[in-house]
Amino acid sequence: MSAALPLKRVPVALIGLGGVGAAVLGQLLAPPLSSRFQLILIANSRLSLSLPLPSGPLTPVNFRPILEQYGVTLDLSSVISILANHSDGPGVLIDSTASEILPGMYPQILGMGISVVTPNKKGASGSLDLYESIRAATYPNSRALYYDEATVGAGLPILSTLKDLVETGDEIIKVEGVFSGTLSYIFNEFSKAEGGDVKFSEVVKIAKDNGYTEPDPRDDLSGTDVARKLTILSRLIPTTPALPEGYASVPTQSLVPPALEDAKTKDEYLSRLAEGDEYFDKIRSEAAAEGMVVRYVGVIDLKEGKVECKLGKYPKDHAFATALKGSDNIVSFTTKRYSPRPLVIQGSGAGGDVTAMGCTSDLIKVHERIAHV
Amino acid sequence: MSAALPLKRVPVALIGLGGVGAAVLGQLLAPPLSSRFQLILIANSRLSLSLPLPSGPLTPVNFRPILEQYGVTLDLSSVISILANHSDGPGVLIDSTASEILPGMYPQILGMGISVVTPNKKGASGSLDLYESIRAATYPNSRALYYDEATVGAGLPILSTLKDLVETGDEIIKVEGVFSGTLSYIFNEFSKAEGGDVKFSEVVKIAKDNGYTEPDPRDDLSGTDVARKLTILSRLIPTTPALPEGYASVPTQSLVPPALEDAKTKDEYLSRLAEGDEYFDKIRSEAAAEGMVVRYVGVIDLKEGKVECKLGKYPKDHAFATALKGSDNIVSFTTKRYSPRPLVIQGSGAGGDVTAMGCTSDLIKVHERIAHV
Repeated sequence: MSAALPLKRVPVALIGLGGVGAAVLGQLLAPPLSSRFQLILIANSRLSLSLPLPSGPLTPVNFRPILEQYGVTLDLSSVISILANHSDGPGVLIDSTASEILPGMYPQILGMGISVVTPNKKGASGSLDLYESIRAATYPNSRALYYDEATVGAGLPILSTLKDLVETGDEIIKVEGVFSGTLSYIFNEFSKAEGGDVKFSEVVKIAKDNGYTEPDPRDDLSGTDVARKLTILSRLIPTTPALPEGYASVPTQSLVPPALEDAKTKDEYLSRLAEGDEYFDKIRSEAAAEGMVVRYVGVIDLKEGKVECKLGKYPKDHAFATALKGSDNIVSFTTKRYSPRPLVIQGSGAGGDVTAMGCTSDLIKVHERIAHV
Repeated sequence: MSAALPLKRVPVALIGLGGVGAAVLGQLLAPPLSSRFQLILIANSRLSLSLPLPSGPLTPVNFRPILEQYGVTLDLSSVISILANHSDGPGVLIDSTASEILPGMYPQILGMGISVVTPNKKGASGSLDLYESIRAATYPNSRALYYDEATVGAGLPILSTLKDLVETGDEIIKVEGVFSGTLSYIFNEFSKAEGGDVKFSEVVKIAKDNGYTEPDPRDDLSGTDVARKLTILSRLIPTTPALPEGYASVPTQSLVPPALEDAKTKDEYLSRLAEGDEYFDKIRSEAAAEGMVVRYVGVIDLKEGKVECKLGKYPKDHAFATALKGSDNIVSFTTKRYSPRPLVIQGSGAGGDVTAMGCTSDLIKVHERIAHV
């Protein structure tokens, strides 16, 4: 066996240490990634910590107390400068925050040669101006790379597959899927192929009690998260309608029923949840009368020129009705090559470990492209 | 928008111009790939043609007659030398042949810095010695890249997903799938969730008449093609059993029934096909009595330490029974992260266009990694 190529340990700064960020940290500190990257800084929204520590190794167990004890006030411009000017650099910024602050700075960060890997949807699903500025600052316009596989379907290879289809010259006809783990769970329980009459409010309560929803379930039921994912997918397809305001330009059906639109607080909404049951019962029974189930889907229909998030009806033997289980995501790509039967990808689309995998597999791609000495 | 990076048009030689090779040629000659690669040579098993032509452009329509008229006797060592020493090189060899000749030369070719992209299973599914020689001659041991996504599931992102799972530190528990389009079609028709009593021989005849099988259906029914794919998958998982002889080391159930094992020629086999019907009727009715359908699957079970190709029984509501249609492939990855519900990828796994897509998406990855000036 020949000697290995000389490869740089690519410098990485990780900002955002919630569930996903912590899981990314765990994957980065373990082999084989620990030998390919050097973690030079971690930060949450307040504090940052330069690495390596003089006192001993950082671990997935000790990082929180050490950050609290030794961290200094986060200074984003200093982090960016360190990454841009590192002797093994420029490095990679992992933005594992949910804020809009860092995404707004991506064009500037990328412009300094720093690559960005992120599960944060706010950059690519916002205004077209920001999105185009991000694209203009990345490969093939510069050496800086931008990867965001984890923004849609967590670790599932959804964006990479869509990119491959487009770049190899396939014609996309339709992209359709269940992109929210929360809404997948709610409708898989509410509208089963085999029937059942559980109330919508009961399913939402169970989902909330099990931690499947945001603290205010309306943040899931608004459909905004799905609209953001659909915007990110849509922008990878050259022939889709322009979405100048990003997710806000996507027609999105809200699952907060008319009877509850006037609920002012989360608590009022939750206490009055059952007032919406009649609304959802009617939708379910109308679908059942046609032999259909109800699913909350995102659809990009290139023939119709439409991008939308809505309650859709699917036959009981459709993959969205039978194959979809639990809180899984599913996406089907119908293309010139993959038709009449689509290319389908399915699996868990939320959670720290699988979302982190989306980020770390992106990091590996970055490493493969920039680690040559 | 900043100016684009200076990128080389990567030199490519395409050997093998059957259905897949012709489709690769079509994708390479069309935008956007035509601007990223320069096709410097095409060849079939006899003749090669250097490009560009003095007389005008090569097209997916004119290449066969032009090759016959102007081609010269194929000289592999000359092709390799041209790729290795190209002024924009080293380039990429696309091996779209089905022969064992080129795969046996991969270590030497890679050793000269030439990257290899191939749908040919003979290299990675043969002896462990050859496989290890290929690995030793590629990144990260050298700058030469080796990509073979199209060997399993054609254009479906199966190998790339397995690599991502392994490299990001997931623990693979089980990989299970229907990897043969031919055998998918045959068993989807023969053993339906909703029942039916079509004869095995009738389904094989329909499959053969529609061109879904090899000219001698025993080449599909032997299971060897599935064993090759399983070998390629298995070798990407560090904890699998060693397969010193590659596919020949994989326990593989043949679908040529005992009654027909003595058939000497293809014609004798085909004329006596119905003699096997009783054998398959029994297998189907035993499964049906348990509420199961029969599918020909490849299984890598890391808990049991087993790699095998066999007739498996699956409940009627399993994805292999309900979601699988036509001649689609399906693969499920059960891992520490993706359990109890697996990550599932499904879609057409055979045919020129989708197999070519597996190759050209690999080519794009090679371009991203070596095109910097």
